[in-house]
Amino acid sequence: MSKKPNEAKLMIAASEHDADMFYATRFFVPDPFIYIEAAGKSYAIMSDLEIDRARKEACVSQTLSFSALAQEAASGRLKRPGMIDVISHFLHKKKIRKLSVPHHFPVGYADALRQKGFRLSPGERPFFGARLIKSRDEIAAIEETQRSTETAVHAAIDIISKARIKLGFLYHHNELLTSERIRQVIHQYLLARNCIGQHTIVASGAQACDPHQIGTGPLKANVPIILDVFPKSSRTNYYADMTRTVLRGKASPELKKLYRAVREGQDLGMSMVKAGVNGRIVHEAILRLFERQGYKTGLIKGCMQGFFHGTGHGLGLEVHEPPRIGHIDAILEPNMVVTVEPGLYYPGLGGVRLENMVLVQKNACRNLTRFPRVFEL
Amino acid sequence: MSKKPNEAKLMIAASEHDADMFYATRFFVPDPFIYIEAAGKSYAIMSDLEIDRARKEACVSQTLSFSALAQEAASGRLKRPGMIDVISHFLHKKKIRKLSVPHHFPVGYADALRQKGFRLSPGERPFFGARLIKSRDEIAAIEETQRSTETAVHAAIDIISKARIKLGFLYHHNELLTSERIRQVIHQYLLARNCIGQHTIVASGAQACDPHQIGTGPLKANVPIILDVFPKSSRTNYYADMTRTVLRGKASPELKKLYRAVREGQDLGMSMVKAGVNGRIVHEAILRLFERQGYKTGLIKGCMQGFFHGTGHGLGLEVHEPPRIGHIDAILEPNMVVTVEPGLYYPGLGGVRLENMVLVQKNACRNLTRFPRVFEL
Repeated sequence: MSKKPNEAKLMIAASEHDADMFYATRFFVPDPFIYIEAAGKSYAIMSDLEIDRARKEACVSQTLSFSALAQEAASGRLKRPGMIDVISHFLHKKKIRKLSVPHHFPVGYADALRQKGFRLSPGERPFFGARLIKSRDEIAAIEETQRSTETAVHAAIDIISKARIKLGFLYHHNELLTSERIRQVIHQYLLARNCIGQHTIVASGAQACDPHQIGTGPLKANVPIILDVFPKSSRTNYYADMTRTVLRGKASPELKKLYRAVREGQDLGMSMVKAGVNGRIVHEAILRLFERQGYKTGLIKGCMQGFFHGTGHGLGLEVHEPPRIGHIDAILEPNMVVTVEPGLYYPGLGGVRLENMVLVQKNACRNLTRFPRVFEL
Repeated sequence: MSKKPNEAKLMIAASEHDADMFYATRFFVPDPFIYIEAAGKSYAIMSDLEIDRARKEACVSQTLSFSALAQEAASGRLKRPGMIDVISHFLHKKKIRKLSVPHHFPVGYADALRQKGFRLSPGERPFFGARLIKSRDEIAAIEETQRSTETAVHAAIDIISKARIKLGFLYHHNELLTSERIRQVIHQYLLARNCIGQHTIVASGAQACDPHQIGTGPLKANVPIILDVFPKSSRTNYYADMTRTVLRGKASPELKKLYRAVREGQDLGMSMVKAGVNGRIVHEAILRLFERQGYKTGLIKGCMQGFFHGTGHGLGLEVHEPPRIGHIDAILEPNMVVTVEPGLYYPGLGGVRLENMVLVQKNACRNLTRFPRVFEL
């Protein structure tokens, strides 16, 4: 909380879409509203539509009416005060001139406030640094979403493992098994547990060689299938994230070796992640392990191959939060939740990625993922 | 497209979360990337992770590699160029000094670019005004999402209509029927049609008197139940939005009158919506109709009552887009898609809202909603 008398924190955002706003208010609103923190108190300025619900549900010191403040602010010149007039009016009453705003605060509003004489400085990402250090309740929420994720992935792998193979494709009850079908199964299991899956990756063969390709069409036998599932709980708003790679049929020695390398890379990463460690060192160690085994990374034949994404990322109210574990320095701190997700992708051979979610602790990390790593089904 | 040689449009956003970015690129990316429009061409600057997929899928003139540009921009002083360095390097090459950015462009990036000498001005909302005028494909996408919405609402109303009444509550197969259960049914039907429902409202009794209360717990007989469903298609990213109010059991004469008033208000709104009309006039006409029938709006006993939200809003790639049909002037234009959703809310009596989605045309509007309005079940 900002304690200096003439300073305030200011956000204008919709808490359904903005993790900082939800973190500050714990209150779901689909449209942008105003949040101000000043002199140790927090204020939400709400429209007529939201004010009664906000008074009951928003975790702020005081809920104020936008239309009442607008009426106060109105004058001969200013018939219908807007968002910026109302903020300006409120801040003048509180004698506040200096504002700290999120890095992603809209420049349109920033310019308007600066024009009215306010001094405005963008903050860090995220706006509330405390978001990166998870409380006991937040860890429990993330684990709850993770349990739902595991149930859904279990259902998907169960179908794939029982699929019949005909002419190189997978069949379930005589129906061609597709990425779309498996994705639907995963989303249905998630929904039954109040979680929302979006852009879930179910990609086999060449599609699995592009890490963010979500996958379409028939699933192939004897090649890796990547399942990357990262839902959010609609109850708590916290995410989980897990990737498994499976293969129905017979894996070639090359594919078995590829899978083992990624598994070893993940083991290495998980053994290194703990408080005080620089994420870059973890990432580079995995890259080196892969290179020692002959798995090069870079532009090969005009196409990115090898291990060309980061080792992991923080998550919580956003699926991708700081710290990023990759090429850039990032010191891990106790009670951060991060993923460890190395992958190797070689068009012609296949793609493998394994992702666990771990809690950073003093001398080690705690694996929040219970789901086993199985490859050949 | 910006045609002046030293000017460009610039966005930094994740297209999965930013409607303007998705509109410009038609390409799903979970993390922020750079989009630049200059001299009639559009550029996407992508990370190694996304570049191959972007080359195949993004609707831009040219896809460029972030890491290749970063390598070009690197110098003795600047070992690891970041987002702003890369943008600055690219713009210098193109001799561009003036930038138009979205109103919601992050102020942190804006300050950094201005410090490098770029002239930056925030644009209108939305950034691409064309987004408000729907093409034939966009209207088809919205209608497709609407058909899924109607299927889901039909399933929900079917269950409610068949519910048994015991001691004032609704039962389905001897199980107490709750807001959560009906919401789940709606979301499952939506999911089966590749649509995602979030924060769907299923609220009865006192809860229905707060228009954005999503509803929890057992559903009551003989009182209005509001169903407000506004999913997005995961295939096209386009939204639909519909509200129906139903009552299982016996409606009192007061409730029948309340429902009739809202239906008349909606009919009046729909009869007025056409190109050239000011949305404010439509909104005020509905308010006056309600007042003539004795339905006052305002703060009554410390709580907002009556018709205290807008009559409607545009929708498309966002569920709430301009124009807003409410207290503020907004001229309707051909091929805008807007909702017409008056409501009346009186704690003690109940809440009723009816929402259709319509296409603004030259001499009238076309109703994109096929679902009937039924009250007593």
